[in-house]
Amino acid sequence: MEIDRLTEAILKNIFIEMEASGRHVHVTAEQANILFGHGLTRSRPLSQPGQWVAQERLTVVGPKGELRNVAVLGPERKEAQVEISLTDGRALGILPPVRPSGDVAGSPGVILRGSHGEVALKQGVIAAQRHIHITPEEAAHFGVRDKQLVKLQTYTARPLIFQDVLVRISPDFATRVHLDIDEANACGYRTGDLGRILS
Amino acid sequence: MEIDRLTEAILKNIFIEMEASGRHVHVTAEQANILFGHGLTRSRPLSQPGQWVAQERLTVVGPKGELRNVAVLGPERKEAQVEISLTDGRALGILPPVRPSGDVAGSPGVILRGSHGEVALKQGVIAAQRHIHITPEEAAHFGVRDKQLVKLQTYTARPLIFQDVLVRISPDFATRVHLDIDEANACGYRTGDLGRILS
Repeated sequence: MEIDRLTEAILKNIFIEMEASGRHVHVTAEQANILFGHGLTRSRPLSQPGQWVAQERLTVVGPKGELRNVAVLGPERKEAQVEISLTDGRALGILPPVRPSGDVAGSPGVILRGSHGEVALKQGVIAAQRHIHITPEEAAHFGVRDKQLVKLQTYTARPLIFQDVLVRISPDFATRVHLDIDEANACGYRTGDLGRILS
Repeated sequence: MEIDRLTEAILKNIFIEMEASGRHVHVTAEQANILFGHGLTRSRPLSQPGQWVAQERLTVVGPKGELRNVAVLGPERKEAQVEISLTDGRALGILPPVRPSGDVAGSPGVILRGSHGEVALKQGVIAAQRHIHITPEEAAHFGVRDKQLVKLQTYTARPLIFQDVLVRISPDFATRVHLDIDEANACGYRTGDLGRILS
């Protein structure tokens, strides 16, 4: 209906949809072959264009415990990365640094166990810094720059204002706030909840 | 040293110490007898005067999973209460409501398994609403009322402003902010970190 489109357009001018990122792993093509005996198989698409969840799952093994049935995201990358919450880190016996995606230098390692084989990572385990994927058009609309840290008001069951939310701009993005599971639970996030950048 | 005392006094006038409450269970004297074959045994004191961690531990059993080695707090209470995070709730297969301590009416039940026996709770599982224990003197200093909801700025590795933080005033309290583990991880809390009530 016309009124719904108008409402949606107005909401999009004020709010940004939020998503909770569960624990997941990115691997290289070579690592996928070792872990699964073949490359990753596409299962379902993610909100970010070109990104998807693989049919393959793996076990992440740390010094104190392991996480089973962990999602693997595709496509394959140039370097492995394991994104977990600080709660997960405690279960594994690891303290992951809070980092932007891709910044894994000097982070802890872990063992990945697939259906076909194992890979020992020397580094790559991080807690992803909360961030906003945003298109250049919407970044201009909201008045934010790439790599800027902004405040974000959540409209959730346990409302709070996240500080130090990293802005990442690309024409290839869909505009979304990404929280980890600790953050999502701390604000009482439910699917579809909205956030607002505070100036 | 005199200067340290002065600094501490100034800090206490501005900031409040925060604590992260791990999952824990309160039981009645009767339930303690069923679970452990005797009353709770004092292990170590908590920051709140008269409250302590018991030597006894138990397993919390939900429809989808269980949490082992869960802390039991003393002294015994008039009604059982299980305080877990939303992350814990997912592991158990329960969605605990976010409630002030003591407000358990209509909350989910769970099975408690002790060294000696089991107790099936019909209700009592909550995620404790974030709150500030505060003495009347400090409440007057900070200008807050009992049951008021305030904003709290965290001075932590992942700073944020918690909204809807419940103020609880009693002369029997030690002044502390209490977060659950999801909230503590979301703000990157480390032991000794401070918060500040925003007016």
